[in-house]
Amino acid sequence: MSQKDNFTFRRAEKTDMKAVVEMIQELADFERMSDGPQLSEQDLIRDSGLDGGHEYCQVYVLTDNTTNASIGYAICFYSYSTWQGRSLFLEDLYVRPAYRKQGTGARMFREVAAIAVRQGCRRLDFHVLSWNPACEFYNHLGATNLTKSECWQFYRVEEQQLAKLAEELKS
Amino acid sequence: MSQKDNFTFRRAEKTDMKAVVEMIQELADFERMSDGPQLSEQDLIRDSGLDGGHEYCQVYVLTDNTTNASIGYAICFYSYSTWQGRSLFLEDLYVRPAYRKQGTGARMFREVAAIAVRQGCRRLDFHVLSWNPACEFYNHLGATNLTKSECWQFYRVEEQQLAKLAEELKS
Repeated sequence: MSQKDNFTFRRAEKTDMKAVVEMIQELADFERMSDGPQLSEQDLIRDSGLDGGHEYCQVYVLTDNTTNASIGYAICFYSYSTWQGRSLFLEDLYVRPAYRKQGTGARMFREVAAIAVRQGCRRLDFHVLSWNPACEFYNHLGATNLTKSECWQFYRVEEQQLAKLAEELKS
Repeated sequence: MSQKDNFTFRRAEKTDMKAVVEMIQELADFERMSDGPQLSEQDLIRDSGLDGGHEYCQVYVLTDNTTNASIGYAICFYSYSTWQGRSLFLEDLYVRPAYRKQGTGARMFREVAAIAVRQGCRRLDFHVLSWNPACEFYNHLGATNLTKSECWQFYRVEEQQLAKLAEELKS
C-alpha cells in the first residue's frame, strides 16, 4: 500500500470489484467500444486469485483518502519475453475524469513501474489507441511506441476462429 | 502430445531447452535483432516451471519423428483481458527454414489455438513485425491485425526507465 497526498494506491479487495467493473465500462466507453466489457465482479474476484485460485491478473485501485471512493484502477499480469524473461503487461490504467490533471495518472503509472521492479520484471508493455491523448502522457513518462519505432503490429485470433483452428487440427 | 505425420508437438522438457535457446536466436537473427536474446537454458527451465517454481511461460517444441530433432518451438503465457477474461499470448512461433512450406507453421499455429481452447482462453494475441512475410500467413489463418483495424499501438517501458519511474515515486 502506498499513501501519498490524498490518495492511496493498493491491491483491490473483493469489495472493490464493483467499482472496478464500473470503471472498466467507463474506459470502454471512452475507447468507443462500449460493448466490449463482459466481466462481472465475481469474474474479477476469481481471476485475481481472491478466492484462492490461480491469479490470472493483478488488480489495483486508487482511492480518495477523504471519501474512500475508488477513483482509478490498474490491471496487469505477468508476461514473458524470450529475450529478457519475466515482464509485466499493463492491460488497463484508468483515472476517473474528475480526478485528472493533478498528477494522478502519472502517480499510478509510477506505482505500476514500482510493482514491475519489485516483482523482478525487466520491462513493462501495454497497448494504447493511436488517437488517445494518453499517447502523449506515456511518451512523456519515457515509454516507447514500438509500433512506430520497430513496426510491431498487434494481432488477435478471436474466440470463434480459435475454436475453428483447433477443430481443423483433428481433420 | 500430438503426433501427426512426421512431427510431434509437445511440451518442452529440460533437455529440449538447449535447442529452444538456439532457435530463439535464429528467430532474433531473422527479425534483425540479433542482440536481443539474453536467456539461458537454465532461465527457460526455471521460468517454464520445470524446476517446480512458478510457471511464467509455456514452452512447446515440434520434433521430427525420424531424427528426434527439434524443428520448431512456440512460447506462450496467460494474458488477461478486462473485457473477456483469461486469454493466451503467443510470444514466439518459429519453424526452422528447412522445414517450412509443408504446412508445418500452420500445424503449429493450430496446436497453439487448441491449447488456448483447452485452457479456457477466449482469445489469442501476438505481435508481428509489419515487414515479416508471416503477416500474410496469420491473415490467412483468420487472425486480425488490430493495429490496422483498431489503431492499437504497442508501447514499452524498458528496464532503466522502469527503475527511474519507481525511484521518482519516492520523491
